[in-house]
Amino acid sequence: ELFVLTYGALVAQLCKDYEKDEDVNTCLDRMGYGIGVRLIDDFLARSAVKKCRSYSETADMIAQVAFKMYLGVTPSVSCSSAAGNEFSLILDKNPLVDFVEELPAERASLCYCNLLCGVIRGALEMVHLAAEVTFLQDRLKGDAVTEIGITFLRKAEDRKHKRNK
Amino acid sequence: ELFVLTYGALVAQLCKDYEKDEDVNTCLDRMGYGIGVRLIDDFLARSAVKKCRSYSETADMIAQVAFKMYLGVTPSVSCSSAAGNEFSLILDKNPLVDFVEELPAERASLCYCNLLCGVIRGALEMVHLAAEVTFLQDRLKGDAVTEIGITFLRKAEDRKHKRNK
Repeated sequence: ELFVLTYGALVAQLCKDYEKDEDVNTCLDRMGYGIGVRLIDDFLARSAVKKCRSYSETADMIAQVAFKMYLGVTPSVSCSSAAGNEFSLILDKNPLVDFVEELPAERASLCYCNLLCGVIRGALEMVHLAAEVTFLQDRLKGDAVTEIGITFLRKAEDRKHKRNK
Repeated sequence: ELFVLTYGALVAQLCKDYEKDEDVNTCLDRMGYGIGVRLIDDFLARSAVKKCRSYSETADMIAQVAFKMYLGVTPSVSCSSAAGNEFSLILDKNPLVDFVEELPAERASLCYCNLLCGVIRGALEMVHLAAEVTFLQDRLKGDAVTEIGITFLRKAEDRKHKRNK
């Protein structure tokens, strides 16, 4: 709860600093990225997990081990593309918003928890996985659940290889 | 660790926002105060502690129950005034600075963890105890330990009563 309230203070400060919600979202994502690239070492050391062999395993690892470890919740995972590189983490309960009732009307586009997207993106990059991570649904915005979308991007060499075929 | 890194991001953002260390310190203290006045409910609910009957009991409670609960460490407590209203919490290890090696030279007056002082002050105020809370020593500044000083202030009525005698 100290963490949750401190996170709230961070978001409030950024809202003071930036008028546009988009700028706050970008800033949270960037901060999260910086955190993720450092947090991954702690995660690997504490979890002692083995190397994942597929995107699907990686998504499960994020949900079942990383979320559990750092936020105390376990999102459910679903694969949302035939190509097998898009996943959704679905949170029934988001501990980070425990003290937030709703977004103020003038902050309707704020992705309050956008830091998390950055953290995931940064941590994945450190294990050589490029990914786009964004909020697809958010209970703070009236959606039924909170959903974080992770799209693993093909590696540059793969893409190049494909083009050259 | 996610908390520790997020706290670091908050301090970094404030250092961007404010040129003077004093302003960052004030801002952290003010934010902490806002957190403390909300955190106290969570603390009382989760700890199920009884009402403290002395300043000394209160200081022990902060160190042994609250610090343990929210930061995972237990500072030692010493009373530093004959009047019995000044206490020191001494931390051999401060988890909030796990990822900080040292303060940059241009930020020599920064009280990196000043949020904690505000949290304690805010929480105490909600149980009708006025206090001044400041860092007396800080390992980040080269001191041997980190020491938080809490001075309980006599209640206004007490002071008035004294003057009228």
